[in-house]
Amino acid sequence: MDTPAKPARGGERAAAKETGRIEAFSDGVFAIAITLLVLNLHVPEVVSATDSDLVPSLLNQWPTYVAFVLSFVTILIMWVNHHALFNYIHHTDHVFLMLNGLLLLGITVVPFPTAILAQYFDRPGQHVAAVVYSATFTLIAVAFNLVWRYAAHKNRLLHPYLDVDKVAALTKGYRFGPLYYLAALVLGFFSAPASVAVCMLLATYFAVPHEWHRV
Amino acid sequence: MDTPAKPARGGERAAAKETGRIEAFSDGVFAIAITLLVLNLHVPEVVSATDSDLVPSLLNQWPTYVAFVLSFVTILIMWVNHHALFNYIHHTDHVFLMLNGLLLLGITVVPFPTAILAQYFDRPGQHVAAVVYSATFTLIAVAFNLVWRYAAHKNRLLHPYLDVDKVAALTKGYRFGPLYYLAALVLGFFSAPASVAVCMLLATYFAVPHEWHRV
Amino acid sequence: MDTPAKPARGGERAAAKETGRIEAFSDGVFAIAITLLVLNLHVPEVVSATDSDLVPSLLNQWPTYVAFVLSFVTILIMWVNHHALFNYIHHTDHVFLMLNGLLLLGITVVPFPTAILAQYFDRPGQHVAAVVYSATFTLIAVAFNLVWRYAAHKNRLLHPYLDVDKVAALTKGYRFGPLYYLAALVLGFFSAPASVAVCMLLATYFAVPHEWHRV
Amino acid sequence: MDTPAKPARGGERAAAKETGRIEAFSDGVFAIAITLLVLNLHVPEVVSATDSDLVPSLLNQWPTYVAFVLSFVTILIMWVNHHALFNYIHHTDHVFLMLNGLLLLGITVVPFPTAILAQYFDRPGQHVAAVVYSATFTLIAVAFNLVWRYAAHKNRLLHPYLDVDKVAALTKGYRFGPLYYLAALVLGFFSAPASVAVCMLLATYFAVPHEWHRV
Repeated sequence: MDTPAKPARGGERAAAKETGRIEAFSDGVFAIAITLLVLNLHVPEVVSATDSDLVPSLLNQWPTYVAFVLSFVTILIMWVNHHALFNYIHHTDHVFLMLNGLLLLGITVVPFPTAILAQYFDRPGQHVAAVVYSATFTLIAVAFNLVWRYAAHKNRLLHPYLDVDKVAALTKGYRFGPLYYLAALVLGFFSAPASVAVCMLLATYFAVPHEWHRV
Repeated sequence: MDTPAKPARGGERAAAKETGRIEAFSDGVFAIAITLLVLNLHVPEVVSATDSDLVPSLLNQWPTYVAFVLSFVTILIMWVNHHALFNYIHHTDHVFLMLNGLLLLGITVVPFPTAILAQYFDRPGQHVAAVVYSATFTLIAVAFNLVWRYAAHKNRLLHPYLDVDKVAALTKGYRFGPLYYLAALVLGFFSAPASVAVCMLLATYFAVPHEWHRV
Repeated sequence: MDTPAKPARGGERAAAKETGRIEAFSDGVFAIAITLLVLNLHVPEVVSATDSDLVPSLLNQWPTYVAFVLSFVTILIMWVNHHALFNYIHHTDHVFLMLNGLLLLGITVVPFPTAILAQYFDRPGQHVAAVVYSATFTLIAVAFNLVWRYAAHKNRLLHPYLDVDKVAALTKGYRFGPLYYLAALVLGFFSAPASVAVCMLLATYFAVPHEWHRV
Repeated sequence: MDTPAKPARGGERAAAKETGRIEAFSDGVFAIAITLLVLNLHVPEVVSATDSDLVPSLLNQWPTYVAFVLSFVTILIMWVNHHALFNYIHHTDHVFLMLNGLLLLGITVVPFPTAILAQYFDRPGQHVAAVVYSATFTLIAVAFNLVWRYAAHKNRLLHPYLDVDKVAALTKGYRFGPLYYLAALVLGFFSAPASVAVCMLLATYFAVPHEWHRV
């Protein structure tokens, strides 16, 4: 099996079709990963005599809900960014497909560290859980930068008429993601709640529109 | 990581592509959430000597089937409405993406209250189950209103040539969803079957075409 | 929440967009349901001393594999037919969306009877399993006919320039699906293998191209 | 249910729509299969007193991670190839849909041999696991060749203006996939690590862009 480097027909339409299918595939992976998070929510088994026993059982699972919402919002923001990034990308090549695949690998894996965090956040193992959780997002943010930088390097895959300053500003903007999540990772060794709080702050920061934090 | 507010190229095509990708992502989440509901249907483990033992085991799971069908139809109707709403929306912005994400968060979570309802509908815990179930749809209906109102406010994201009266009528129409589900929620404290019956009535009401209940 | 009957803008493009999104949603549900079937394949837990213990454990699960492949092929054929049907459909309405939703409900549920069949095919309960399995496909075939007949009735939703004889021939062709699966259902009361064999024959019959069995 | 061989309207647009929907459905199946792999990653249950107990539990699962990444990358490459292949394909027919369905059946099933490999790689049963794993990819590679050869035979489904030499070169290129995986399969009888190493080499070989290994 071999990957032809060029589409059968050159030209604008083939390129649009090409990036279109990567976007569709990526959207699919984002949509599935974000929806599979719900499988971490388990119905508590209560052999109860009254309703009042189910309520505390549901509430005791609060780390599960926190991890669910946090991962959901973070994947959503990743998707919004991915979606924004493809507004600038005009065509693709084999390396780009593989780098995008690396990013999707990271997105796909999110339900796993989410489940670890949910299970160990309020008991011993919480530091490991927080570190694994923020490490995942650190790697995703790195992959995100790789995807963008590969595409933007010497305008390799971008629309030819893009403003050079704009591209440089975007590169600068994306650069901080890995550092922020690395900070959360390091914090995790000392305090799991602090590490998760940083992840929440990042999600909130990117979710809320700040005209002022735009490049 | 930062979200560029504007697509690289202005103009009609970029806007169409932009809403197109949100629709595709949303469709993906709706389609996955609606399909994951089947994972709540478990094959009963019967160490039976005859066929006649499997039949009652399957039938005893009736709350599971009811919850499955009810959630399926309700998500389907939510999708139909979401689909209708995007016929009016011309472009998007960051806040809209986040509000739509909130709506999708609600849709994604549906398999969880569905499983709670299925497991506790015919035994103690049923009131909690019914309240959690209808609370989920109340929140989804609220998110739905937020999405629409944000888009419709001063024609922010709508097609410019839309009839103002039509938009106002739609806003009025969508407004009742949260109230209906809130009624089901309140009922749940007193009677789980009554609460679920209201959810069924709502699903039926919206599923059956009523020319007269259209705005 | 209310479903507007008409898109904001009339005309060809809006109609194409409208059927396009139903096709995309339906494709999503078909694709997810067909892929979720794999979750029925469980890795046998063998505390083995040698490789030779894993082989029989894997082979003993043969009903699981048969059910998996049969359901996969049947859903695939349903998808091919759904896909063919939309070549003729030009626009949609609320009733059509709901009937298509009923069809998708059937497709979504397939992993459940597949799991029942896999678990009970080679032990008591097999008749029930075979009946439930073929009943599911009977209902899907009925829903398929409802979707088509609603669309085709007086050319309600079809392309205006379709040949009347062609439409009538298609209606005639689709008509037999429910009857075939009903036969499998009835057979299931007497012999589970015979019932499953009929389902296999149907899948093979529709999978293999027969110019002669085309209308 | 019957499959009309021809779309309602002949012409370029109908053909584009037709291949478009197969691509969308295939993309969906690829995206879901690749994302479901994460369900094989289980959170270890540790009744620990300290964090230091969770780390070895997570690390002990290394075969699970290896199998996850290997299957992810392999499916990704299959998707890239599938995507490339459809750049050459102009229209479809019933046999092609079924052969493509066979390929998707193979892709869909991947999480199962991946789980087997993950569970048995470091204990007895490893030879069986490695053989089953590489056998799956052998079959997928065979299906891939069938899809391409059926489409390419006498330019049956290709763009009419494709270069004959190019098509022949592609056919030659795709031919080796099944042989490589067959080698991994045979190796599996003697050494599971060697078999998996070959699968890794193949994934790396195809993932890394080699201008020199292009046809």
